[in-house]
Amino acid sequence: MIKVGIVGASGYTGVELARIITSHPQVKLTLATSRQYDGKPLSEVFPNLRGQVDIVCKNVPMNKLAEQADIFFLAVPHQTAMAYVPGLLEAGKKVIDLSADFRLRDPLVYEEWYQPHSATAYLQEAVYGLPELYRREIADSRLVANPGCYPTSIILALAPLLEKGLVDPETIVVDSKSGASGAGRSANTATLFCEVTDGFRAYKVGEHRHTPEIEQEVSRLCGQSIKLTFTPHLLPVSRGILSTVYATLSTDFTQAELDKVYADFYDKEFFVRILRDGALPATQYVRGSNFCDIGFKVDSRTGRIIILSAIDNIVKGAAGQAVQNMNLLCEFAEDAGLRHLPLFP
Amino acid sequence: MIKVGIVGASGYTGVELARIITSHPQVKLTLATSRQYDGKPLSEVFPNLRGQVDIVCKNVPMNKLAEQADIFFLAVPHQTAMAYVPGLLEAGKKVIDLSADFRLRDPLVYEEWYQPHSATAYLQEAVYGLPELYRREIADSRLVANPGCYPTSIILALAPLLEKGLVDPETIVVDSKSGASGAGRSANTATLFCEVTDGFRAYKVGEHRHTPEIEQEVSRLCGQSIKLTFTPHLLPVSRGILSTVYATLSTDFTQAELDKVYADFYDKEFFVRILRDGALPATQYVRGSNFCDIGFKVDSRTGRIIILSAIDNIVKGAAGQAVQNMNLLCEFAEDAGLRHLPLFP
Amino acid sequence: MIKVGIVGASGYTGVELARIITSHPQVKLTLATSRQYDGKPLSEVFPNLRGQVDIVCKNVPMNKLAEQADIFFLAVPHQTAMAYVPGLLEAGKKVIDLSADFRLRDPLVYEEWYQPHSATAYLQEAVYGLPELYRREIADSRLVANPGCYPTSIILALAPLLEKGLVDPETIVVDSKSGASGAGRSANTATLFCEVTDGFRAYKVGEHRHTPEIEQEVSRLCGQSIKLTFTPHLLPVSRGILSTVYATLSTDFTQAELDKVYADFYDKEFFVRILRDGALPATQYVRGSNFCDIGFKVDSRTGRIIILSAIDNIVKGAAGQAVQNMNLLCEFAEDAGLRHLPLFP
Amino acid sequence: MIKVGIVGASGYTGVELARIITSHPQVKLTLATSRQYDGKPLSEVFPNLRGQVDIVCKNVPMNKLAEQADIFFLAVPHQTAMAYVPGLLEAGKKVIDLSADFRLRDPLVYEEWYQPHSATAYLQEAVYGLPELYRREIADSRLVANPGCYPTSIILALAPLLEKGLVDPETIVVDSKSGASGAGRSANTATLFCEVTDGFRAYKVGEHRHTPEIEQEVSRLCGQSIKLTFTPHLLPVSRGILSTVYATLSTDFTQAELDKVYADFYDKEFFVRILRDGALPATQYVRGSNFCDIGFKVDSRTGRIIILSAIDNIVKGAAGQAVQNMNLLCEFAEDAGLRHLPLFP
Repeated sequence: MIKVGIVGASGYTGVELARIITSHPQVKLTLATSRQYDGKPLSEVFPNLRGQVDIVCKNVPMNKLAEQADIFFLAVPHQTAMAYVPGLLEAGKKVIDLSADFRLRDPLVYEEWYQPHSATAYLQEAVYGLPELYRREIADSRLVANPGCYPTSIILALAPLLEKGLVDPETIVVDSKSGASGAGRSANTATLFCEVTDGFRAYKVGEHRHTPEIEQEVSRLCGQSIKLTFTPHLLPVSRGILSTVYATLSTDFTQAELDKVYADFYDKEFFVRILRDGALPATQYVRGSNFCDIGFKVDSRTGRIIILSAIDNIVKGAAGQAVQNMNLLCEFAEDAGLRHLPLFP
Repeated sequence: MIKVGIVGASGYTGVELARIITSHPQVKLTLATSRQYDGKPLSEVFPNLRGQVDIVCKNVPMNKLAEQADIFFLAVPHQTAMAYVPGLLEAGKKVIDLSADFRLRDPLVYEEWYQPHSATAYLQEAVYGLPELYRREIADSRLVANPGCYPTSIILALAPLLEKGLVDPETIVVDSKSGASGAGRSANTATLFCEVTDGFRAYKVGEHRHTPEIEQEVSRLCGQSIKLTFTPHLLPVSRGILSTVYATLSTDFTQAELDKVYADFYDKEFFVRILRDGALPATQYVRGSNFCDIGFKVDSRTGRIIILSAIDNIVKGAAGQAVQNMNLLCEFAEDAGLRHLPLFP
Repeated sequence: MIKVGIVGASGYTGVELARIITSHPQVKLTLATSRQYDGKPLSEVFPNLRGQVDIVCKNVPMNKLAEQADIFFLAVPHQTAMAYVPGLLEAGKKVIDLSADFRLRDPLVYEEWYQPHSATAYLQEAVYGLPELYRREIADSRLVANPGCYPTSIILALAPLLEKGLVDPETIVVDSKSGASGAGRSANTATLFCEVTDGFRAYKVGEHRHTPEIEQEVSRLCGQSIKLTFTPHLLPVSRGILSTVYATLSTDFTQAELDKVYADFYDKEFFVRILRDGALPATQYVRGSNFCDIGFKVDSRTGRIIILSAIDNIVKGAAGQAVQNMNLLCEFAEDAGLRHLPLFP
Repeated sequence: MIKVGIVGASGYTGVELARIITSHPQVKLTLATSRQYDGKPLSEVFPNLRGQVDIVCKNVPMNKLAEQADIFFLAVPHQTAMAYVPGLLEAGKKVIDLSADFRLRDPLVYEEWYQPHSATAYLQEAVYGLPELYRREIADSRLVANPGCYPTSIILALAPLLEKGLVDPETIVVDSKSGASGAGRSANTATLFCEVTDGFRAYKVGEHRHTPEIEQEVSRLCGQSIKLTFTPHLLPVSRGILSTVYATLSTDFTQAELDKVYADFYDKEFFVRILRDGALPATQYVRGSNFCDIGFKVDSRTGRIIILSAIDNIVKGAAGQAVQNMNLLCEFAEDAGLRHLPLFP
């Protein structure tokens, strides 16, 4: 059994990692750190784990961490994560970082959108952990930068078109909607039930930090430096991201031609489910699962394509994708522990 | 007291008309038609009206309708509405039609998106009932085509920019999200609680019937024939539309310059609340009210503007705007019966 | 115009008081205190008020408060409220206290459930502000203890039966369910959207502080000292309380006999709507209004009656009832500013 | 592999059975009947199953049914179920009936609450499928009457107390709250999103058909014929039942004494999680799982105990419990296919 540690277990990503790892046949959870809940069983913090997860949260000093597990999931905020990485790698451990700290290859871009970076030496070796695009690199790495939730939904939606040059990348507009679990579990008036329920709003318009991450991967896929418009919104649901992606087609494609492009591109991918004939995804059909559902419509009136992708932001957008990356790192079956069907209704 | 009739009182627009009319000081509800609930007090169909609305639903033959009121709100489906209009107008009544039947000036466009039109003779005199743009024409008319909910939110968002030519209208992309009351009150598996809650999806992508209505008004405002992309989505909320509108700016404007454009354009409008300095609207802050809140962000990285507008789809998007139109027709204060503040939380 | 002040304007009760007062024809809001938002327009804290409420939050020292208004609503926590009361009363002002500080007549009971009381001298003159039971006393008072939200729904449900001795008060069991606005607007992990939505739980079982308040009024109504069981639950809705009240009937009454008892008892009450023939209330039909809807069922199999009452916890359970009390204090029409119909859907 | 059939696959119980069976290692889904969706893949009816479930819905005549599987889940309405049972049993198949048709042992009671019973000959051999109480009898049977959702939550909550005679069964009052999935998937105005969301109500007060089922099992546990009060309510959530059960204790027990009673009674039960020290369950912590969480509080002021139990109504209250019963019938591990942890948030 491989020993797994969660650094920062008290957030929504932490509990979801614990849930998935518990049902994974080849690993064992040996560490769950939390400053706030030091000494408290994780199943008291998250009573859904009651009776099934017996680990106790601990506040472990950084220099005592490496000995507690073989693989580490960092579920801490950006800037905190980069402080953990060097020590763990130097102790010979593997790290899957769920923060943004190692996603951007260019430290200048990182520092423009975030703050100074203290571990730039590791940026080059970090692999962007989107298995559908970087499977081989992930398997060979020791530091995986787990993608952001929005970027996962958007890059998977666009990749087939960009790789084949079927859209004009200068025209990309992305309108994404996320459930409130994406905002985390910190006490905050803005995410109280009464502020979110029965309402809807955009936030951080034109300035969300996932923008450069999306642009990095889109630029790489189409081979030119792209800036795009990305607008996130807050849905009154716990889980789920739906991204609606707009782009002008480079020529008049039919729905059927593009159905084939998508089907071919994702032919071997277990976790990407392509919808045909203009069928459309919905977040409620991926809830609790690691699937990304993608559908699209050719709007021949305007020459645009509208692509829609749905994921569970805590699973394929965070904990599930992290376990998928762990499976690659450990040479397990890629879907080990991740075959749960979505829960509907 | 002017006598008011609601034709089709058993839907969500019907109950909202009844709610608003009941608190209106200058009119009296004298008719509420319903085939399904014939003989049943409207307050048993909608118990929120209990004790305050004593009208009984009736199934009234078309030829007996005109005598029952002075002004009629048609809250019936398209195609049904056009059957009522000639008789009521010929009996000297005024009509506010909440269906789509008289919104499109060109009968060919109507017939392309809907079905044959049986009352084209009245299309020319019908006035598009968006008071902020057509106040004078409404006041002089006898047939008002009450705008669609999505078009209301979108046209108000774009009007200042289009009128002054500040954006390239060929680049307009509209991503709208509506609460489930927009889908009506008919029994339907797709709008059951369990199908909608904790979920999110797009629908009728590239083919929603509000598209030609939006294009008609956008084209008129910018003086050229425009086709645009419009994507509606279904929110797990009862009330509220948020439209996110994208367009490429014709030149480099600052946020402050456009703040002034919007503030000037809507300076005298009671029901349009302009947010400054990049503040963003949210549906929960217009709930139950006739306000349209508009904010925007200049995305100088991409040269686009992102405009966000929020309305309550049953109020400013339907019943409230209809009463605003009635106030104009009757020369009442335009905000009579419509000064309710939004309900939050 | 009478000048009205809200002490503690930044909570959900504060914003609802501001909403109602703004539409009240005989009073003017001249003061809204908030330490946290000192200097900020109230309509920035609560954007639903945008454009319609221009008051700025202020942090006013206690000794400068009295001069700012004629009537004060205290929307601060218990223990804080009692510190304001003496100064305001001595300055000749009238006070409506929405906290629990003056609801319990017996200081020993207060101190058993809360903490020491620093203004016991005012307990005797405070009137329990349930107008349906204490209308005359409220009109003659200067200090009104606005009832708790749960007690309002429960006492109104039980009063007709208790006053006539139709149930055995020793058998009363109360199972109440409240929307999350009752938990306030403080940042708190337990009331985050993701913790509350799509879930349901009981809390403070057997120990909620509204218990002695309910018992005080129940005991007074039936003329004997009663202890009862009260279980509050947290609903995933913003607004609304539904209380389900169980008691054993003292003899075999029919539904029709009790229909008459309730109808007679509340015959003149505008804000209490009695449902007949076993019809049942629902929180969605009182949303945003000051109504209390009451229905019941005689369960002849077990000899019990089940009474259900629905209120909007922020309106009839807090701000609306406070304004109803203000209307009595000021000799306004009791329903002034409170005639809004419930918002449905 | 044992072949499993679902009769009536198009409801919420049907899709949940399909979800659970798909992840069960020892059985294979070979039949999914539906009149409405005849010829349609089940994964088009329920897109959460997309890509993982390839069965096509069929409308199978009753006399062709038995040959299609070894074990049948009847997920059809009462009265329909009883028509299927004789033929399947006579063909040597095992049947787990999720309707109410075989839950009540006394046909007169059944006919009083439902309608005439056409298969009374099978009533005596049917076993009430609550494994925690009837494990051995289930294993030996061929016809299991899967319990109702409410009764499951209530009987498990009361069993330890009743069996030991610790409460007065004449005083039992049950206040239950269920998610909307319990109302089924038929098109119905009353369960539309807008009618249910942001609201709460009781229904069928004093007359719900689960009452005699609860009374049958309570009476058997305490050895005397009991009538009790049961009030169901509709929660604005998809999944989950919380039952709040009140009873007068036969003597002064402490919380700790009763903690031990519950812990001992359910000591070996994987699916019952007992909370200690007054901790309280919540539906969000059992979502998607087969667990029943039980907590309670001794209210020494009134001599009552308040027991709270939480289940997922579609899992432990229907499909999950049915699979648990199948596991017993087939001598599989009782938790096979049912070890999913609850999904939170």
